[in-house]
Amino acid sequence: MILPVNYCSSCGSKTARSIPEGEDRERDVCLQCGAIHYLNPKVIVGCLAEHEGRILLCKRAIEPRYGLWTLPAGFMENGETTAEGAARETREEAAAVAQNLCLYHLFDVPQINQVYVFYRCGIENGEYGVGPESLDSKLYSPDEIPWDQLAFPVVKELLEEFLSDARVGNYPIRQSVIRRPRGR
Amino acid sequence: MILPVNYCSSCGSKTARSIPEGEDRERDVCLQCGAIHYLNPKVIVGCLAEHEGRILLCKRAIEPRYGLWTLPAGFMENGETTAEGAARETREEAAAVAQNLCLYHLFDVPQINQVYVFYRCGIENGEYGVGPESLDSKLYSPDEIPWDQLAFPVVKELLEEFLSDARVGNYPIRQSVIRRPRGR
Repeated sequence: MILPVNYCSSCGSKTARSIPEGEDRERDVCLQCGAIHYLNPKVIVGCLAEHEGRILLCKRAIEPRYGLWTLPAGFMENGETTAEGAARETREEAAAVAQNLCLYHLFDVPQINQVYVFYRCGIENGEYGVGPESLDSKLYSPDEIPWDQLAFPVVKELLEEFLSDARVGNYPIRQSVIRRPRGR
Repeated sequence: MILPVNYCSSCGSKTARSIPEGEDRERDVCLQCGAIHYLNPKVIVGCLAEHEGRILLCKRAIEPRYGLWTLPAGFMENGETTAEGAARETREEAAAVAQNLCLYHLFDVPQINQVYVFYRCGIENGEYGVGPESLDSKLYSPDEIPWDQLAFPVVKELLEEFLSDARVGNYPIRQSVIRRPRGR
């Protein structure tokens, strides 16, 4: 959830929308101390984790898309790298230790101000479990994937891409844009 | 500049550091309305723009590193893709129209909570100028690059990589981490 900027986080005074000097667009500017409050896109980091030809999916225990299957992923935290964040999410959501992470796909989702950075990786000893944000976790073989119960379009796209790449044994890094109607 | 979160941007009340229920780390939480203020890494987008074997650099008219040469790059804005942001920065800083953008290098810089996404691209008609944040712009041939006057280590690394790739005519997408001492 993106919080509104009604007040200055620095001094607590009211803000107003205005175009700061030298800039070309409106920002939330503090009427008292003049602090400019920039809002920037957030990075989502995640893993497509594979073990012996099967792919790790998690059943969401949180909204949105409660009960649907997804790849372990979440907001990148300050102080970590994209790969560290992707591994952390895999640990938190599927109690699995990601290993040999390779950058795989960067998705832009401009309508919701997000950038997704997905790594592909292995799973240490093939061990996994169920984290607090998941109802269940499972290593799915390609013919078992619950295509009609996937949480997000990006998950479907990435799984299809990975299975296609796996058939030829080559996994190029890709970049693409996911456009979706505003308001969804 | 990252502003402190002393006050809630939503309701204006004081915040305090605490670990929200179900989380594992301290956040700035509003003492009145309970809003959790997450701080996340920011994305820097930029272009390595080439025209007829020469590379576009800009001389910084702003701090930090005033007067040193850099690649056009800056904070990604809400509502744009990484490529759109990289093209916007190229337009703003060097009055050049980036074309045929290809993802080139993702750098993690965890100590300063940043992710750099660089594209390589061409320049429409080879035309460029000097934007308001630049003192000068120039297309540098490889043997003219001012190696001792580059603004940031990432610029040097990316230029070396590009020149190396250009010699073999292959430009793989790469990902790496820039570690630097805290406090710099």
